[in-house]
Parts: sequence; C-alpha cells; structure tokens
Amino acid sequence: MDIERLQKQIDFIVEIDKLKHIFRQTLLMDKSRNENSAEHSWHIAVMAILLKEYAADDIQLEKVLKLVLIHDLIEIYAGDTFCYDDEANKDKKDREAKAAEKLFNILPGEQADEFRALWDEFEACETPESRFAAALDRLQPLIHNFYTDGHTWQLGNVTREQVLQRNEKTRLGSPALYGYVKKIIDQSVEMGILNP
Amino acid sequence: MDIERLQKQIDFIVEIDKLKHIFRQTLLMDKSRNENSAEHSWHIAVMAILLKEYAADDIQLEKVLKLVLIHDLIEIYAGDTFCYDDEANKDKKDREAKAAEKLFNILPGEQADEFRALWDEFEACETPESRFAAALDRLQPLIHNFYTDGHTWQLGNVTREQVLQRNEKTRLGSPALYGYVKKIIDQSVEMGILNP
Repeated sequence: MDIERLQKQIDFIVEIDKLKHIFRQTLLMDKSRNENSAEHSWHIAVMAILLKEYAADDIQLEKVLKLVLIHDLIEIYAGDTFCYDDEANKDKKDREAKAAEKLFNILPGEQADEFRALWDEFEACETPESRFAAALDRLQPLIHNFYTDGHTWQLGNVTREQVLQRNEKTRLGSPALYGYVKKIIDQSVEMGILNP
Repeated sequence: MDIERLQKQIDFIVEIDKLKHIFRQTLLMDKSRNENSAEHSWHIAVMAILLKEYAADDIQLEKVLKLVLIHDLIEIYAGDTFCYDDEANKDKKDREAKAAEKLFNILPGEQADEFRALWDEFEACETPESRFAAALDRLQPLIHNFYTDGHTWQLGNVTREQVLQRNEKTRLGSPALYGYVKKIIDQSVEMGILNP
C-alpha cells in the first residue's frame, strides 16, 4: 500500500467537500433555498441513469456518470457563474482553467490527468457522452425553473429565446428531450413565468 | 416518443429532489452544518471513481456508481436512521422496504424493477460491487468524523469497538482501505475524539 498516494486521494476527498458550499441560482423544488453544486451533480447523475434511452448516440453510461459527477468541481475555486450573466461569463473560461490546474493537482499524477481530461471532455462537448452530459446539465435547471414559477428566469429577466439558446446543447445531446424542453418553454410563456 | 413514460420519469426526478432535505448526523468538514443525503451520495460516487483500485474484487465501476447514487433514496420517506441508534434501527428494515415500494413505483415498470433491484443489491451486500459501495458508505463518514473532531462519535458516545464493528463492511469491500480505517481509529482514540 502506497500511503503517500492514498493520502493525496484523501486530501482531494476532503477538499471537494467544499462543493457543498457552492450555491447555484436554482431553487430547490419547495423553494426553501438555493441548490448547491454537489446536490445538482448528484441529481443529474441519477437523471443519466434514468434518461439514457433518450441520448442522441450510443453512450457509455459509466463515462457520462464520471463527467457529470466531476463537471462542477472547479467551482470550488472559480465559483458558480450564472449562465445568463454575460459580464461574469467573459472571464469564466480563464478562471475555471486556473481552478482545474489547482484542484486536480492535489491528486496523484495519473489521476490528476484523468480528472483533467474528463473535465476538458465535458467542456469541449464533442463526444457523445459529453453531449448527453451537457443536455442533462441544461435540462435539470429547466425542470427546476418550471416547478418553481420560473425563479431563475425572473431573476435574470430571461426571454424564451435565451432559454432556447441555452438548450441548444440539449438538442445536440438528446433531440428527444429537446422536444420536451420546447414544450415546457412554450407552456412557461403561456403561464407567464417566462418572458416571450 | 412515449409521453406518459417520460412524464413518469420526470415525476420521479422531481420527487427525489427531496433527498436534499434529508439531513445526516455527519457535519460538513468546516462544521458549519449537517450534511444531507444527496451531498453524501455525490461524495461517495466521486470516491468510487478515485478509490476503485482498492476494491477487494474486480468491480464494474458503472454498477458501483448506480448503487451509491440511489442507495439513500428511500430515506425520502423513511428518514435517515443514525447508525449508532439501536432503538431506531429496530424497525429500519420495515420502514425502508415500504419507502422503496412507494418511491420506485413512480417510475415506468421496468425502471421501477431496475431501481428496486439495485437497492436490494446494495442492502444485501453480497456482490463485489455492493460490498465496495458499502465500504465507501462507511469510509466517508469516518473521514468526516476524523476531520470534525469526532462530532458524530461524541454525539452517540460511541466507542472504538463500535466504529470497528461499523467498518466490518469496509474490511469486506476493501481490505486495503480497512487498513487505513484502523489507523484513523487508533489515531482518533489517541487524540481523545473517540472513546477507547
């Protein structure tokens, strides 16, 4: 047993506990508080198991699960960037790359490389697995918004067009789920919880 | 597209949001509040990716991830039962089986069966994957206790022997990690954060 190796892994496990303190704009379904990124990551991982039949391509579920479980870890240092805040999104890429460098290097060498490669794959969104992971990452907050009277949409004064744009990745990763998304968007506009 | 099928899956996704309200005895690393079961499930899923090299047997990581992601869902109706509370553990099995029946049947038939089978596999703890999943489920709160001055151990007035007993499943699922667990237990007794 390589004690030094295990200690690096434990140090990483302790460090990522901080993701439970990173709050998103999304409300929990009962509107009692904002959701944090650890809870969000768990939720979309379960969704991956449930909804894999709707993926655009043949996918390896194990890979999708790895991608969604680690995709937000860099927020521990970079914070959660509200997707409809144009100003904050300008330096997002740079902030997150620096965070990835710092965080993943807590791990033993080849695991640092594996986690960095997974995060890069999620960000590039070019493989079937990362496209499906991105679709789930868009779909989950949309469901939350629909069930919490459009909370985040109201907060950002968001329009129908912006939500459609945001869900372009859902269309790529899952045309079937994108059909559902469009239905929810239309219904939300009708209900007055999303700007036309 | 079978709309009725998708709606059942969405209903389930909405219902399991409630796991974010189920609090455990474990504190977050910074001691600011108790951890909830959605965060715990996410944390041990990442641990499964990181620590799979220490599993007692050859394991399918995808199966382990499914098991840990869904293992606590039944707490939505059955609550989290403190592992060192003998009284509450008397009717735990019965309460949780009823909860599983109610929760998983929100899903379309064959998915209800799949999720129930996964939960049964986790509970029975007889396959290599479920034994490794159980090891992670024991190891994570032990790490949290060690880094929060033995919070849960103090709360339950727990002894070294009880923690060793609790980690029997760690020994089965991962003899290598059990070596680390024993070291942490001895160190905790020396530090006075765990009763001898």
